[in-house]
This record gives sequence, C-alpha cells and structure tokens, in this order.
Amino acid sequence: MQSNDQRAYDRGTTIFSPDGRLYQVEYAREAVKRGGATVGVRTADGVVFASNGPRRSPLLEPESIEKLHDVDGRIGMATTGHVADGRRLVDYGRRYAHQERLRYGDAPDTEPVAKAIADYIQESTQTGGTRPFGTALLVGGVDDDGPRLFEVDPSGTPAEWRAVAVGNQSREVRAFLEAEYEDGLALDTGTTLVLRALADSLGELDAVDVDVATMDADGFTSLALDQRRAAFEAAGLGPAS
Amino acid sequence: MQSNDQRAYDRGTTIFSPDGRLYQVEYAREAVKRGGATVGVRTADGVVFASNGPRRSPLLEPESIEKLHDVDGRIGMATTGHVADGRRLVDYGRRYAHQERLRYGDAPDTEPVAKAIADYIQESTQTGGTRPFGTALLVGGVDDDGPRLFEVDPSGTPAEWRAVAVGNQSREVRAFLEAEYEDGLALDTGTTLVLRALADSLGELDAVDVDVATMDADGFTSLALDQRRAAFEAAGLGPAS
Amino acid sequence: MQSNDQRAYDRGTTIFSPDGRLYQVEYAREAVKRGGATVGVRTADGVVFASNGPRRSPLLEPESIEKLHDVDGRIGMATTGHVADGRRLVDYGRRYAHQERLRYGDAPDTEPVAKAIADYIQESTQTGGTRPFGTALLVGGVDDDGPRLFEVDPSGTPAEWRAVAVGNQSREVRAFLEAEYEDGLALDTGTTLVLRALADSLGELDAVDVDVATMDADGFTSLALDQRRAAFEAAGLGPAS
Amino acid sequence: MQSNDQRAYDRGTTIFSPDGRLYQVEYAREAVKRGGATVGVRTADGVVFASNGPRRSPLLEPESIEKLHDVDGRIGMATTGHVADGRRLVDYGRRYAHQERLRYGDAPDTEPVAKAIADYIQESTQTGGTRPFGTALLVGGVDDDGPRLFEVDPSGTPAEWRAVAVGNQSREVRAFLEAEYEDGLALDTGTTLVLRALADSLGELDAVDVDVATMDADGFTSLALDQRRAAFEAAGLGPAS
Amino acid sequence: MQSNDQRAYDRGTTIFSPDGRLYQVEYAREAVKRGGATVGVRTADGVVFASNGPRRSPLLEPESIEKLHDVDGRIGMATTGHVADGRRLVDYGRRYAHQERLRYGDAPDTEPVAKAIADYIQESTQTGGTRPFGTALLVGGVDDDGPRLFEVDPSGTPAEWRAVAVGNQSREVRAFLEAEYEDGLALDTGTTLVLRALADSLGELDAVDVDVATMDADGFTSLALDQRRAAFEAAGLGPAS
Amino acid sequence: MQSNDQRAYDRGTTIFSPDGRLYQVEYAREAVKRGGATVGVRTADGVVFASNGPRRSPLLEPESIEKLHDVDGRIGMATTGHVADGRRLVDYGRRYAHQERLRYGDAPDTEPVAKAIADYIQESTQTGGTRPFGTALLVGGVDDDGPRLFEVDPSGTPAEWRAVAVGNQSREVRAFLEAEYEDGLALDTGTTLVLRALADSLGELDAVDVDVATMDADGFTSLALDQRRAAFEAAGLGPAS
Amino acid sequence: MQSNDQRAYDRGTTIFSPDGRLYQVEYAREAVKRGGATVGVRTADGVVFASNGPRRSPLLEPESIEKLHDVDGRIGMATTGHVADGRRLVDYGRRYAHQERLRYGDAPDTEPVAKAIADYIQESTQTGGTRPFGTALLVGGVDDDGPRLFEVDPSGTPAEWRAVAVGNQSREVRAFLEAEYEDGLALDTGTTLVLRALADSLGELDAVDVDVATMDADGFTSLALDQRRAAFEAAGLGPAS
Repeated sequence: MQSNDQRAYDRGTTIFSPDGRLYQVEYAREAVKRGGATVGVRTADGVVFASNGPRRSPLLEPESIEKLHDVDGRIGMATTGHVADGRRLVDYGRRYAHQERLRYGDAPDTEPVAKAIADYIQESTQTGGTRPFGTALLVGGVDDDGPRLFEVDPSGTPAEWRAVAVGNQSREVRAFLEAEYEDGLALDTGTTLVLRALADSLGELDAVDVDVATMDADGFTSLALDQRRAAFEAAGLGPAS
Repeated sequence: MQSNDQRAYDRGTTIFSPDGRLYQVEYAREAVKRGGATVGVRTADGVVFASNGPRRSPLLEPESIEKLHDVDGRIGMATTGHVADGRRLVDYGRRYAHQERLRYGDAPDTEPVAKAIADYIQESTQTGGTRPFGTALLVGGVDDDGPRLFEVDPSGTPAEWRAVAVGNQSREVRAFLEAEYEDGLALDTGTTLVLRALADSLGELDAVDVDVATMDADGFTSLALDQRRAAFEAAGLGPAS
Repeated sequence: MQSNDQRAYDRGTTIFSPDGRLYQVEYAREAVKRGGATVGVRTADGVVFASNGPRRSPLLEPESIEKLHDVDGRIGMATTGHVADGRRLVDYGRRYAHQERLRYGDAPDTEPVAKAIADYIQESTQTGGTRPFGTALLVGGVDDDGPRLFEVDPSGTPAEWRAVAVGNQSREVRAFLEAEYEDGLALDTGTTLVLRALADSLGELDAVDVDVATMDADGFTSLALDQRRAAFEAAGLGPAS
Repeated sequence: MQSNDQRAYDRGTTIFSPDGRLYQVEYAREAVKRGGATVGVRTADGVVFASNGPRRSPLLEPESIEKLHDVDGRIGMATTGHVADGRRLVDYGRRYAHQERLRYGDAPDTEPVAKAIADYIQESTQTGGTRPFGTALLVGGVDDDGPRLFEVDPSGTPAEWRAVAVGNQSREVRAFLEAEYEDGLALDTGTTLVLRALADSLGELDAVDVDVATMDADGFTSLALDQRRAAFEAAGLGPAS
Repeated sequence: MQSNDQRAYDRGTTIFSPDGRLYQVEYAREAVKRGGATVGVRTADGVVFASNGPRRSPLLEPESIEKLHDVDGRIGMATTGHVADGRRLVDYGRRYAHQERLRYGDAPDTEPVAKAIADYIQESTQTGGTRPFGTALLVGGVDDDGPRLFEVDPSGTPAEWRAVAVGNQSREVRAFLEAEYEDGLALDTGTTLVLRALADSLGELDAVDVDVATMDADGFTSLALDQRRAAFEAAGLGPAS
Repeated sequence: MQSNDQRAYDRGTTIFSPDGRLYQVEYAREAVKRGGATVGVRTADGVVFASNGPRRSPLLEPESIEKLHDVDGRIGMATTGHVADGRRLVDYGRRYAHQERLRYGDAPDTEPVAKAIADYIQESTQTGGTRPFGTALLVGGVDDDGPRLFEVDPSGTPAEWRAVAVGNQSREVRAFLEAEYEDGLALDTGTTLVLRALADSLGELDAVDVDVATMDADGFTSLALDQRRAAFEAAGLGPAS
Repeated sequence: MQSNDQRAYDRGTTIFSPDGRLYQVEYAREAVKRGGATVGVRTADGVVFASNGPRRSPLLEPESIEKLHDVDGRIGMATTGHVADGRRLVDYGRRYAHQERLRYGDAPDTEPVAKAIADYIQESTQTGGTRPFGTALLVGGVDDDGPRLFEVDPSGTPAEWRAVAVGNQSREVRAFLEAEYEDGLALDTGTTLVLRALADSLGELDAVDVDVATMDADGFTSLALDQRRAAFEAAGLGPAS
C-alpha cells in the first residue's frame, strides 16, 4: 500500500514529486509489466523478436492480438503493456517511416524511427492534457549500420541493446539473456535463444501462444505456426500442443 | 464497496493507477455489462449476430432500439452497453467506410473498419476532455479473406474471434460457445448456435426481443420477426409468444 | 440522501462511476421529471401530442410557454424538463431540418431529425466543457413511412413508440397508455386518449393548461383553446373552467 | 443555512444536482431578488414599465442608474438584479436589433428580440467558462401583433405576460397585479397601475426614485421627473418630495 | 473571520454564492478601500479631482505614482485601489478614446468612455480565466452636455455623481460631501471643497501628498505643487510642509 | 506559520483574498527579497546601479550572472530576485526598445520602457495560465528629461525614485539612502554612495562580487573590476581581495 | 518527510510558495541529482566534458545512452537528470543552432545557444500546461571569444564557469574542482582533471561507463573507448576492465 505522500503526486497532469520522480510515468511502467513477456535479440545478420501471450480463449484468433508489427517492410516493432496504446505508437512509427520515405526516397534507418517515437512519448509526459503511454516497445531492423535493436520506455528514453526483454517477467528474462547471450549468433541460433529465454522464465510454452518475427536483410518476416513449431523443436522445447 | 485508494484514480481525466490500470476504462467495461447480451459467430460462409434486449414496454417499437447495424451494405456491427455511445461509434464506422469507398472506389474490408474504430476509442482514453465510450462492439463481414469477426473493447483494443459474446452474461455465453462451437458451420447452423447460446445463459427467450442479422456474400441481412420465429423453432427453442 | 461514493462521480465533467453509470445524465433525467407531463400517441393517420403545465399565474400568456413546437411545418416536437434547454434543442432541430431542406429540396423525414438531435445530445454527455441537456423530447410526423413517433432522452438515445409519456408522472401515464392503447386509432380518438391519459394520472385538468397538437398529412396543427375545450368534452372530461 | 449536499453542486461550472436542479441558476435568481422592484404592464395600446431604486445618495444622478432602456427606438427593456450584467444583456439586445434592422431593413419585432436574449442567457448556463447572468429582464414593444410584454429569467426562459413583476418584492407586486389587472387598460391607466403596484408593496415612494417608461405606437418614451410627479398625483400617491 | 460557507465561493472563477453575491467582486472592493482617498466634484464649469497618497519615502518622486490621469487632453480619470490594475484601465480608456477620435474625427464625450471601461470591467467578472480589477475609477470631463462626473466600480457598474469619493475613508468623505456640496460652484470653490473633504476625514494633509487636477473647457490640467499650496491656503488648510 | 485562511487564497490562479490582497503577488515579493541587494541612485548627470551577489564558487565567472543589463546602449536595467524571470523581463524590455527604435527612428526614453515592462508584469498577475514574475527591476537612463530612475515591482507598478534599493536587505539600504542622499550629486559621488549604502547594510564587500554600472550622456557603462576596485578605494571601503 | 505547508505548493501549475520559492523547480533539481555525475572543464584551447553512468546491463550498448551531444559540429552539450527531458532540450538547441546558421550563414557562438535554451526552460516554469524540465545541461564550445563553458539549470538560469559539475555527487565533484582547477590547462591536462574529479568522488571508475568529449578549434570530438582507456591511464586511474 502506498503512503499519503505518494498519492499526492500521481493525479492530474504529470508533475515532479519532491524527490524528483514522475509517478505517472512509473505507473505506466507498471502497465508494461502487466503485458506479455517480450524478447529481442540482435544476431550477426538480423534481429529476432518473440512475444508470449497465452490465449484468453480457444475461440480467439491469436494472430489478431498483434504483438509484433511490420512497420515498413524493413523495420519491426514489438509492443507490450496496454495494447491499445501500443497500437497507437506503432501507427505513429508507420506514419513517420512513410513520411521519411516520401521525403528521402528511401526507407528510414532503425535508429531515427526509434528516436522519433521516443520524442513522441516524452511529449506525452510533459505537456498537459494527456497521460503517458502504458507501453514499452522494441524497434529492430537491419540497415547500413548492420542489425540494430532499440528499446523505448514509457519515459520516452531510447536505448540500444544486444538483447533485451520487456513486459511480464522481464527481470528474469534479462538475467537469462545476460548469462546466455553471445555476440555473432546466427539468426536461427538467435531464434533458439529467445524461445529458451521465455521458456526458462515462464515455464512450459505453447508455440500457438508465442509470436516470433525476424528482421534481416530480406526485411520483416513473421513466423507461421509450423515454423514456430519447428523452432520450438530446434530449441529443445518439445512438440507444441 | 471500493477502497479509498481506488477512488483516487477514477476522477477527472483518464490516468494510470499505481498498479498501471486505467479505472475509467474499467468502469466503461461495467457500462458494457449493463447492456444486452450480444453474440457473434463466424461460420464457413458468413457471420451471424444475435442480440437480446427485453422490451421495456409493449408500446416501444423494438426495431428502433438498434443493436445490430448495417454499416456499408456489407459490414455489420453489433453494439452493447451505453446505447448513445454505441450509436456514435457506428456513425464513426459508417463515415470511415464511406470515405474509404470514395477514396478507393470499393467497399473497405472488415479489418480496417474495426481497427479505425479501435483507434478512435483509444484516443478517448488518452487525450483529455472526454470520457471513454461505454460500449463494446462486434464488427463482422465477408471479404476476400472470407468471413471475419472482430470485437473492439472500451480500451480500444481490436481482437479477431471465431465466436464471441459481449454485454450482459457474456462470461456464461462465452463458456457455452467454447463448449459448442465448431469450425465450418453452415450459416443457418450458426444462427441456431447463437440463439442456443443466448437461451442457455438467459433462460427463456422471446423472438420479439432478440435481433438477428447475418453477413454473407450477399451482404448484411436483418432477420424479420417471422424469420426469427422460424430460427427459434429450428433451434428447438419453442414457439415465441 | 445519497452516499459519499455517489457524490464522488457527479461533479465536473461527465465520467463513469465504478458501476458504469453516468450520474450527470441520470440527474438530467431528474430535471425531466420536474417538467410538465407530456404524452405522444401514434394513430392510423397521424401523431397527437398533449402537454400539461398549470399556469403559474393568470397573467401569464399560456401560449408563450412553448411545450409543443412546429419544427418544419410537418414535424412536431414536444419538450419537457428544463425549459431553456428544450428551446435550444428545438432550435437545433429547426436548423437541421432547414439545412436538409436546402440540401435535398425537400423536408426531411421524422427519423433523421430525431436522430440528429440524439447525436447532438450524446455529444453533450461525452465531450468536456458542457453539461447534458435537462430535457426529454418527442418528435412526431407523417412521412412516406406513415406516422412516426420518437422519444429522445438525456443520454442521447432515440426510441420509436406507438405511445409514450415523458416528464412529471410519466410512469403513471405510461401504465395507462399500455392498458388503453390500440393500434389503428383515428386521429380524434388519439386526441381523446392523450387527454384521458393525462387526466387519469394528474387528476382534474383545465383545457387552458393543456397544449394539444396534431401532426398528420396536413402537417403540424396546434389546437386553439376552443378546439381543446371541444376535445375535453369529447373525452368526457367535463367543461373546462 | 444550506447543507453539505447542496454545497457540492454550486461550484465550478454549472452542472445538475442529483434532483435535477442547476444551483448556479438558482443563485442567479437570488441576485435578481437583490435588485430593485420592477413592473411591466401591457395595455390596450402599449406597454408601461416602472422600476424603483432608492437613491444611495442625494449626490447620485438618479438617471445614470439605468433600469429602463431604449433598445431600438421602439422596444424597451427593464433590467433588475446585478446591474453590470443587465447592461451587458441590453447591449446584446441592441446589437441584435441593429443587425436585424440591417438585414431586413426594418426594426425587429418584440418577440424575436426577447428570444435572442433568452438563447444568449441559456448558453451561459450550459457552456463552460462563464457564470449565468444575475439579471432578469422585461422586454416590451408594440408591433404588428400589438403590444407585447416578455420576461426573460436567468435560466434563459422567455415568457409572455399581461402584467409581471421582477426583482425585490416581486411576489407581493405580482399578487397585487393579479388582483387589480384588467385587460384593455388605457396607457395612462396602466401607468397608474404600475405605480400603485409598487407603492402597495414597497410603502411610500418618491417620484425621484422611480423610473417610468412607455412603449406605444410612437416608440419608447422615458418620463421626465415632472411627468412622473404628475403620474404619482394621478395615481393618488401624493406629491413627491 | 469569515465562515466556511463564505470561503466556499471565493475561489477559482467568479460564480454566484447562494444568496446571489459575487465574492471576488466584493473582495476587489476591499482592494479599492486599501487605496488612497480620492474625491471628485462637479462644478458649474468643470470637474475637480483630488487624491491623497502619503509618500512612502522622501526619495520617491510623488508625481510618478499617477493617481490622476489625462486621458485625451479633455477627459480625466482618477484611480484608486490596486495601482497596477488602475494603470491597465486607464490604458484601456486611452485606447478607446483614441479609436473613437480616429473613427469620428473628434474626441469622445465623457459618458461613452466611462461606459466602455465599465463594460470591460464587467467582462472580467463573468468570463473565466481572469480576476476582477481591484480598482475604482472616476471619469470626468466637459462636453456638449456640460461637466460630467462618473464613477465605475469593480462590478463594472457606471454611475453619474455630482460629488463622490472612492478609496480609503470614502464613507466619511462622502458624508462630508453630502453635507457641504452645493450646485453651481465655481471651479476654484470646488477645488476648495475637495481639499476640505479630504482634510476633514483624513486629518492633517500635506500638499506634496495630494494630487489635484481640473477638467474644464480648456481640458485636463494637473496642478503643480505651488498651485496646490495656494489651493491649500485658499481652503484654510495652512501652509504645507 | 501562516493560517488556514491565508493558505486558501494562494493557490491556482491569482485571485483576491477577502481583504483585497493578491497573495501570489506578495509571495513574488518574497522571491525578490531572496535576490541580491541592488541599489540605484540618480545624480545630476546620470544614474548609478550597484548590485551585490557573492560568488557561489571561485570557478563561476561572475560576469555571467547578469544583474545589470545594457538594454539599448542608453538605458540600463538592474534585476533581482528569481534570476530566470529577470532575464525574461530584460528580454521583453530589449524587444520593446528595439521596436520603438524601428518605429520612431530613435531610442525610446526611459519612462516608456519602464511602463511597458510594468504593463507586461501586471498582465501576469491577472490573466490565467501564468504566475507573476518573482523579480523587481530598476530602469535607468538619461534622456531629454535628464537622468531618470524607475522601479517596477512584482505587481506591475512603476515608481520614479531619486534613490532606491530592492532585493535582500532593501529596507536597511533604503534607510541609509534616505539619511545620506543629496540632490545634485556628481556621478562619481553617486558611485561612492551606492557602494557605501551596500557596505553599510551588508558588512564587508568584495569588489569582485559587486557589479556597478552607470548611465549618463554617453550611455550605459559597466565598470570593469579594476574600475570597481578604484571606486571601492574612493569610497573608503579598503582594497578588495 | 515534508510538512503540510510544503505539500500545498507543489501540485498543479508552478506557483510561488509563501516564502517565494517554486517547488516544482526545486523538485526538478532533485531529478537532476538522480542523474549521472557530469563534469565540464574549460582549458586554454578548448572544453572537456566527462559523464559517468554505470551500465545497467552488459547487454546495453553504452553509446546509446547519450550523455554528451554534438550540437552543431562545433558546440557540445552534456545533459544529466531525466534522460528523455534532456533529449528534448538538446533537440531544441540543435534546431536553434540550425536556424541561426540559416539566418546568418555561420554557426552560432556558444553563449547565445546556452541562453536560448535557458529561455525555453524558463517558459516551462511560468506558463501553464507543462512541468519544468528535470535536466541540467552544460554547453561548451570554442568561438571568437575563446573556449566557453555554460551551465543551464532547471529554473532556466545560465551561468558561465571555468569548471563545473552537475548531477549525482555534484557537490563533491565541485569541491574537488575548486581545489584542483588551474587556469591555462592544456586540453589533455583538462581531460585528466575531469577523470580525476569523477574518480575522486565516485570511487573506482570503468572507462566503458564514462563518456568523454572535447570541444576545441577542430570542433566536437567524442573519445572512443581506446582513447578513453588511454586517458584513464594518463590520469593514473589504472587500466579499465
């Protein structure tokens, strides 16, 4: 239970608490923790995303709960936390990429897309009339600088990672990645790594509930269910149901 | 009765609670539960909607309480919860479909319509000066991808279902659907299923109080009272009063 | 007396309570109950409105307290509740009808006028900076679909009725109508019915205090005092003072 | 003394109380009661206004406290309550009349002017960012429909009267008028009536403190002090000091 | 000390209290009482203003604390209360006079200038986003209607006086004026009267601390210190320090 | 410690307290008292400013903490209190002077610049959405009226002085000036006076910490450290460290 | 723990407390203290920045947490505190520099860039609808005035330093600099000084965690990891891990 002091700073617009914190941003991070576990790994020739979200119902089409997004044919995004907020940020990223393409005649690189979304999020934490976004997102892609993997958090801060996890159980998944990650992985080894990282922290996984996507020189590719089942077997995770 | 802590976050604009929740959105979900039970089922060749709403008075024209809406001749929507909010969302969907038709010379597919409404709802949960919509809606139609059935909830999240229920008693109706639904149903078998799902959860039904509509290759069709009575009999629900 | 919990949700802008209600809208319904009893009945060839409002003073010109309004020569409206709010809604309806006439060269039908006002009211319950309208209104007219009678309530929901009552004592008047209403009434029998419905619930009536109007193929007609006295006698309500 | 419940609804913007009342509008009516007693009477050939306001000081020029206003040469207004608010409403009426004259080449009739001001007042009770007007006003004039006399109250409701009183002691003055008013009075008999109505309720009057104006076929005429003294004598009210 | 009831209505925007008062306006009147005593007198051929304000320090240039203002060469204003607010109102009056002069090729009369400022003040008491002006002002001048003297108070009400006092001790000074004022005074006798009125209420005066200005057919004239000393002697107030 | 009554009026927008005070303005005066002691003296041929502000660190460039500002080559300003607010006011003054120069082809006089800033400050105390400026400023210069020295306080009131002090210890410095100031001083005697006034109230001074500037017929001149050391010696204040 | 009095002034918009403080600005300074230790030193031929920020994870790319920013090829900025706010201020500085370059055909000097950002920050502390920036920044560069080093704090005050520290442990680092700094250092000696200042206050440092950049006649240069390792050794800080 929180104290009276803390309650005083978490209402209305986003303002500083006496110890220099922005509580609405911290609460938005809690919304992120309520989202599905999401992992990104940078390999020698691309980036791999995996996101776990158990189906609420067997009647739900799992593909419709988009967790991994193709932004521009070349850049991918993974979102977790408040789903509707995540869709808005992906839309923003798509519009930004589209405008850059119109302006420069070429697809934008990964970093400027991640930073444009970060700026958009920061604004939501300072200017009145809106709340922060309850979403963390990963941005990945391959451009002239090779494979790049960025995280953008609810404060609007971008950071580049070799491997990172956000959402539910992210602390445990990150610890696994720190122990197991190696530079120079092949893309399929990276896929094995993200699945093992999820399985290690979350227990038994079902290939139906886990979205996987890769971004390499050929662009964004979402793995179909049979491909995911094969990857599960390759990762030693047993046959999916 | 709610606690003091909870009360602190549900007033004024929509902001995060310390555990990352948006209470105004959760309260809007309560408004949805106060609405009539509404079911959607995807069949092999179309989508069926049924919505139950006992007449407040024998003098009320039941057709005037629109629960199932023809959006574009091809796409249907079912709304439940705060009725006036639902009408506004349907209007939004119609205007969106109309603009897409003007722009591309063809009726839009089901998914982009559902997602446009979801975006519109998300905005109401983040930008100040407005409350969320107290309405859940189902969007159904048949396009090049075959029959599609989407739910959009008060947070602005779209999801695709094979069969789904919203509104009053939705938990019970969903359980019935999970037990009874099969892929590849014919449209009239789907109609039987939606009526049985409602009757199982709500008890005795009157064909006068239940709206039924189908969306197939011929577009949106609302069933007249005699057609509904026939469907009731076909579903073994006895003659309506 | 209301509880503390309820009080917390009825101030400032219109937001949801934890159980999904909009208190400002419910309070606006109370404003409607403070208005004069108002009845509408659909007959075979037209619609009849009657509205009761005892004169505050013999020096007041009763016609100046407009309760029944000629909107377009063809469509009539009855308002009850907060009088000034009602005038604003009637103005809105007139402007809407006028624009439709300019656009399509013909008077609009009854239903679109009722729905346009309903949309206008819904907006007042969601967008900040304004309170709801403390007014219920009936909209009646005869068009290609025959006689139509709509009610629009403070939530912005339209409904079509064969016979309906709003305002003071509306529960009692509706019960009378449910017991006595028959389809296929002649217009003058409908006039008798609305007067009997008011008299049954409100006790002794004075023709001076009751406004009566009919909408049929000849359009909107307000009954003069001698016509109302004749109708009172025809309804067996005795001579007016 | 008011209760806690009442206090909760009378601050900030104008919103409904649980019993459907608008407290800010009711408090504005209290501001009206603090204003000078003001009477209007419709006669066979014109309208008479009288307004009482004891001089705060013998050094104050009584004419400068305008209570009766010439709006357009033809229409008169009497205001009472919060003086500065009244001046603003009169300004609004003058601008409205001026615009109508420019548009139609002729002075507007009495009724549309009264209704335009009523609409302007209603808006102040619903749209945020402003308080209601603490003023009641009478609007009188002679047009093709003969003499007309309207009252507009702080809720923005217009009403037509044969004789009416607003402001201080209005209940007592209205009772006197109901007892003494007759149709078909001559203008000078009407002048006698308004003075007697004020004297009956307020006790001894001084012609210096009472403004009197008539609106007849010749337009708006404000009575000079000697004319008022003569009218006092004609009304049997004794010589003024 | 004020009660809880009163405190509830004096914050935020200017709204009505249950007894129809505007507390922010009443508090602005208190700001006026904190200002220097200011007197205006209308004589046969002009208007005289005097304003007392003891020097805070011998190093302050007394002329720089403007209390009497030349608006247009012809019209004068005296302000008291919140000094910075008074400067803003004088600026408004000057701009208004300047615009009128540009529009009509002639200096405006006294009354329209006083009324324009009154309208500007009223707006500050009704429209949100601003507080009232903590200033009372006198407006004087000689035009075709002869000498005119107006007071405008913080509610935005204008009043015409033969002699009036505002600011500190205004009640006492007004009582003196009511006892001593006579019509038809010469301008220098009026000057004697305003000085005696101040001295009677405030005790010993110093000509250095009292500003005096006259408005007659020659326009606005501010009296220099030696002229004020002569006037003090003429008024029998002894030599100034 | 302040009382509950006082606390009620010092939040949100700037509004009047029941006794007619503007607490936010009074608190802004407290911010001024937290600023460095600042003195201005008018001499026969110019104005001298001195401002004391002990260096927070020997590594800080003392010139960068601008306390004395060259506005237009001819006019100088001294600011104290909230430093960032002071910079904004100086910017405003510079822009104003620049515009006047463009409009009239000549540098503006001292008084209109002081008054323009005063108007700008007053607006911050009345119009919503901003707080007052926590800054007092002195404006000095020599124009056709000779040397002029103005103070503008946080209420937006300008005043002209022969000698004045603002900021820390201003009461003590003003008392010294009242005792020691004489008219007709030479500029260097004025410089001696401002330094002695500071030293008398603040104790031992260091020439490094004291900014000195003069405005005479040659315009604004800031004294370099060696000039200040010479002036310290001339004032008998001993050699600076 | 803070008192009730303090809490009353730190919510909503930035307003003065009774003792003239702006609590939101003071809380923003606390946010700065939560940021990494950051040092700037001015040498004879350039400016050196160093910023320490231990890696949260070995998987994080340390370069992506930008603490030292190349603004215009010539000017550098160091930010600490709330990272996302710092990025926004750097963006503002870049846009400002770009516009100046377009306007004058040449890169702007260091001082105007620092002051433009200071003005932008001040606005955030006075105008409603936004919170202050939780960031302190250093601005350094070499222009015609030689090397310049400015600090801008959350109140929007700029100051010029010979050596300065902001962020975590800034008090200790400043004390070290005051003891050890000498004028006329060579650039590499300055680099040694900033590293020793950090190490003295923070304990053992890792070259991977410390960003270093220099601004000299050749413009902004960020030191690569091997250059930083060499500098660590030159400073006697031992080999980095």
